[in-house]
Amino acid sequence: MPLTLPPSSIATAARSLTAAAASTAANSTTATAARRLSLIKRNLTPVPVAAAAKMTAAYTRKHRVTVIGSGNWGSAISKIVAENTKAHPTIFEPEIFMWVFEENYQLPSDHPKYDASKHSSPQKLTTLINDLHENVKYLPSITLPSNVVATPDIKAAVRDATILVFNVPHQFMGNICKQLEGAVLPYARAVSCIKGVEVSADGISLFSDYIGKRLGIYCGALSGANIANEVAAEKFSETTVAYDPPGHLTPLPEELPPVDHSVMKHLFHRPYFHVRVVNDVAGVSLGGALKNVIALAAGFVDGLGWGDNAKAAVMRVGLMEMQKFGRMFFQETCRAGTFTEESCGVADLITSCNGGRNHRCAMLSVREGKSIEEIEARVLNGQKLQGTSTAREVNQFLAQRGLEKEFPLMTGVYLILSGQAKVEDLPKMIEREENDK
Amino acid sequence: MPLTLPPSSIATAARSLTAAAASTAANSTTATAARRLSLIKRNLTPVPVAAAAKMTAAYTRKHRVTVIGSGNWGSAISKIVAENTKAHPTIFEPEIFMWVFEENYQLPSDHPKYDASKHSSPQKLTTLINDLHENVKYLPSITLPSNVVATPDIKAAVRDATILVFNVPHQFMGNICKQLEGAVLPYARAVSCIKGVEVSADGISLFSDYIGKRLGIYCGALSGANIANEVAAEKFSETTVAYDPPGHLTPLPEELPPVDHSVMKHLFHRPYFHVRVVNDVAGVSLGGALKNVIALAAGFVDGLGWGDNAKAAVMRVGLMEMQKFGRMFFQETCRAGTFTEESCGVADLITSCNGGRNHRCAMLSVREGKSIEEIEARVLNGQKLQGTSTAREVNQFLAQRGLEKEFPLMTGVYLILSGQAKVEDLPKMIEREENDK
Repeated sequence: MPLTLPPSSIATAARSLTAAAASTAANSTTATAARRLSLIKRNLTPVPVAAAAKMTAAYTRKHRVTVIGSGNWGSAISKIVAENTKAHPTIFEPEIFMWVFEENYQLPSDHPKYDASKHSSPQKLTTLINDLHENVKYLPSITLPSNVVATPDIKAAVRDATILVFNVPHQFMGNICKQLEGAVLPYARAVSCIKGVEVSADGISLFSDYIGKRLGIYCGALSGANIANEVAAEKFSETTVAYDPPGHLTPLPEELPPVDHSVMKHLFHRPYFHVRVVNDVAGVSLGGALKNVIALAAGFVDGLGWGDNAKAAVMRVGLMEMQKFGRMFFQETCRAGTFTEESCGVADLITSCNGGRNHRCAMLSVREGKSIEEIEARVLNGQKLQGTSTAREVNQFLAQRGLEKEFPLMTGVYLILSGQAKVEDLPKMIEREENDK
Repeated sequence: MPLTLPPSSIATAARSLTAAAASTAANSTTATAARRLSLIKRNLTPVPVAAAAKMTAAYTRKHRVTVIGSGNWGSAISKIVAENTKAHPTIFEPEIFMWVFEENYQLPSDHPKYDASKHSSPQKLTTLINDLHENVKYLPSITLPSNVVATPDIKAAVRDATILVFNVPHQFMGNICKQLEGAVLPYARAVSCIKGVEVSADGISLFSDYIGKRLGIYCGALSGANIANEVAAEKFSETTVAYDPPGHLTPLPEELPPVDHSVMKHLFHRPYFHVRVVNDVAGVSLGGALKNVIALAAGFVDGLGWGDNAKAAVMRVGLMEMQKFGRMFFQETCRAGTFTEESCGVADLITSCNGGRNHRCAMLSVREGKSIEEIEARVLNGQKLQGTSTAREVNQFLAQRGLEKEFPLMTGVYLILSGQAKVEDLPKMIEREENDK
């Protein structure tokens, strides 16, 4: 990209970066310094006229993409997005930012890229990522494309981004949105890769809606049968992107390609990561939450040794309850097929019931005759099961509305978790509902 | 049941039994002799007036049920049906016939019911089943209800049956129908538990349609995630019964309850075997055939070690192709939800991809770098994979119509089986189709 700004603008831009970013830049190699320069430029300036004249596309600006989050799934998505921004340069600026919650990290001396002259003491994680093109802490052994630029400055990372991809643990969303309020472009569009929904007695809230409302922009959702490490290793998988912006948004500048299903597909689809784009944001989000409750049921049944028939039956009944839940509480937008036909529904459920942690802990709890909390503490190394809290929240929500009997499997999981029913009762609980129809 | 026929009628009836049946009866204990008597009676006589007067139901006759077949699945279904005919005596005659292809069987001396005075030489299988209430050869260790009467005489078994349940290997159907032509009640209704369909370049034929046409009666279908031994052990599972008789059938006598979805549910539903009754016979039948092709694809992918994401993706794409196949070739009757919402669809697919023989052989073939025929010969002990022949037949059918590209996964499985493609090509083959949409 030709340099068209006078050096003084660059100096101004550099001052606008936070101390953290500056300190990262100070640690950088020459290659990283060049990327920083490009970062500064892109925070400041539209595409230069000279460059625009060379474009073959109808639009004179390209989308700038930023990923908020750098855990294993955030890093895997950054890899995918960066591969695609590079592959589709008429739509996207190739370089993307990945916002990293900064921390110091000591690179192990047996790491293949360990260099005693640089890595003998802990380094900033952003510095290591930008130097080594690898998220050495959260996605080790996977090379990130060189057009992924890690930055600790969340405001600088989003300032010029026209497309934001959120991929952080849900408990951090409140604080992140607080930092981002007023900092994003009013015409930015977003996609949330945060699985699940927030359910309470009062109602159900989608993370995508929460992000959209807090930032005053539109936010869609991405969810599917996507174990992060398998996606990062380019093992084949699929995902579902839900994107259905309303008409009353702040319009995009005319110079930018409209953000439609085609742009979403170009942003996320890879030969090893197949994307289907749908409109049903609620369905895509619910799938990622409710499947954890069903995975507990499948685990309970496996724990009893009831065999493959029983497991498949529980999964099928669970899929139908997920679908019914969506249709009952999001009837305006929720499509039955989102659950039964898309990766975010049936495929994610299959993966979670085959190898997920909810399934595993539930199975061990029955097999060993111990509470699931005891298994959780032993097996998960301090992490928490999402299925158990979702099962309780969903039950509270249903009980408040007198609808527990309409969802006998989800209710059964809650009753088993709270010691009010036995796993052996599940067929009978499900049967009653079937006969009521 | 009061005896209302003069002894001479019984003598006549006894003569009408075949020599095989008579020889079985000769070997019987007193208890079996009593059942034989009842068998003879029911072959001859409608419900006596005296008994009818005592009935509380609105109908004066009850359905007589016969199961054709006594393999492990046939015996498991006989057990279920007999439990239900006993549980619902206002709808059904409790006693059911199970037709057995007669053979001699030497009861092992370590069998818990072995009695040296009777079992030191090979016995007729029907005699053993009726004496021991166990199909000692094909479903050992499972007690059959005492109201299951095994008989080697197929014509006697069906003569008075108003409901016929077919459960034999599909290759025997032609010969069985030949024996039954003209032998069944014109107003009998049937259900086929034979999985799958017959596909050739010329077209697709449902076993239920074949039975119905050959015998001049209506035949529905039963299919689901049902591993016979698990069902027999009363481990929880579900199934789907498809039953949608046309209007122009020979009507049932008015004394008999109409055979509707409720009767089907009463006949097959158990606390451990949940039944959903639908109308879509084609969908239920297709599910049981096409899932074997998809299970091969899932096995191939597992053989490569691509992980749970990839397997779930292949299963989801396969489910969509099954649904598309049904909708394209049986559009009048086929319902999309039969594949994505019922046990015969998504649940049977899940079971087949988790533990079925098609999945297993395909996985081993990739893992060991050997042809699937080689694995089949080694692993299946002379039995044949259904998935490989169905994949070839489906391909022939699609190729004839120029529709191979519309079903890239099923086509891909065929190409891999015939050495024209590699498993690694599957994502690309599927991707092309997705992009064509």
